[in-house]
Amino acid sequence: MMRGLFISMEGSDGSGKTTQIERLKDYFLNKGYEVIITREPGGTLISEQIRNIVLDVKNEVLSDMTETLLYAASRAQHVEEKIKPALESGKIVISDRFVDSSIVYQGYARGIGMDIVEAINSYAVQGFMPDITFFFDIEPELAMKRKNSQKSLDRLEQEHISFHNKVYEGYKILLKKYPERIKSINARQSIDNIYEQIIKEVSSLLKEDAYETHICDHS
Amino acid sequence: MMRGLFISMEGSDGSGKTTQIERLKDYFLNKGYEVIITREPGGTLISEQIRNIVLDVKNEVLSDMTETLLYAASRAQHVEEKIKPALESGKIVISDRFVDSSIVYQGYARGIGMDIVEAINSYAVQGFMPDITFFFDIEPELAMKRKNSQKSLDRLEQEHISFHNKVYEGYKILLKKYPERIKSINARQSIDNIYEQIIKEVSSLLKEDAYETHICDHS
Repeated sequence: MMRGLFISMEGSDGSGKTTQIERLKDYFLNKGYEVIITREPGGTLISEQIRNIVLDVKNEVLSDMTETLLYAASRAQHVEEKIKPALESGKIVISDRFVDSSIVYQGYARGIGMDIVEAINSYAVQGFMPDITFFFDIEPELAMKRKNSQKSLDRLEQEHISFHNKVYEGYKILLKKYPERIKSINARQSIDNIYEQIIKEVSSLLKEDAYETHICDHS
Repeated sequence: MMRGLFISMEGSDGSGKTTQIERLKDYFLNKGYEVIITREPGGTLISEQIRNIVLDVKNEVLSDMTETLLYAASRAQHVEEKIKPALESGKIVISDRFVDSSIVYQGYARGIGMDIVEAINSYAVQGFMPDITFFFDIEPELAMKRKNSQKSLDRLEQEHISFHNKVYEGYKILLKKYPERIKSINARQSIDNIYEQIIKEVSSLLKEDAYETHICDHS
């Protein structure tokens, strides 16, 4: 059986990831695929318990390294319990955030070091990475304005805009490091234009897979 | 001001660590030191929240890597919030378990790999290690018999005796790797004999510190 496709979505909150995830889900469903939508931090019961510790405003003394390791722990469980089994049964998995978020948020913006966070996470996921990652490129100010309609902000969201600007810088660094895996999407465009660009990338991946399957059929 | 002393205690549950920690505490108090007794997993409010996730019997799907990273996260917080500040103010810190427990339990007995768990933890504690570690050397069967009087067993304690035998093996490997830091104590002896041996090691460490202070006074 063909292994499914693992797609991660990265970028600031308010960059339009959620809208595109829903559209992409419909795209795959219409093509007859089974689709799992998930998110980080979270995605399993244990990961949600970990998420609660990280986002609890009472835990203001949480150290940056503790936060980094908690996210890595949550991710290890997410991969082993949910993502890997889904892919192995041929499903498409779309995750709102994955390893890149940790590298950028804790590694770059909080200053733990991108290499250190990447090393910790490569242990956590044991080399397992998305087939393709979309980075929603939009200036943090603009993204936060879009998000303004939401009721309450959690601990991370309360942080100052300068932090989000560092996050944005971090994503740009990562983009240069992994140009094959991470595709930058201009998230200032209309929803339809963004969708079109994502579908173009995804459908070429599906074709590659189909081609490989074809090769296998004749070997 | 002189930096305090950081002592960790390692070995199976039931090996007599708790009794000796209490005695050692009195020893230091009588000498006029301030003493902090702590334990892992746990030691801070955040670490206790993490501990609850690990020990919750409902979380039976918890993966070995998730467990490893949760312990590392708990330890990062423990070091930064509690152990380091105490040492910097000249206190003695005695911790029931530290990095070695993870290397042995998750790295060796659960099979994650001792080197991998050691690497993850060296990120977590950022190179910070005990001045001295006592390993309470006693066969797991004997240690568990001693513990029999306790009411209920948590998820980790429910594991089979063969697991504890692997843990014991793991400690022996670590002992060979770090003979300078880790001191093996024959925990089958009487409480008084064990105590005597620990005091001998600890007092020689205190003398070294005193000597260094003396040198400084005359420089």
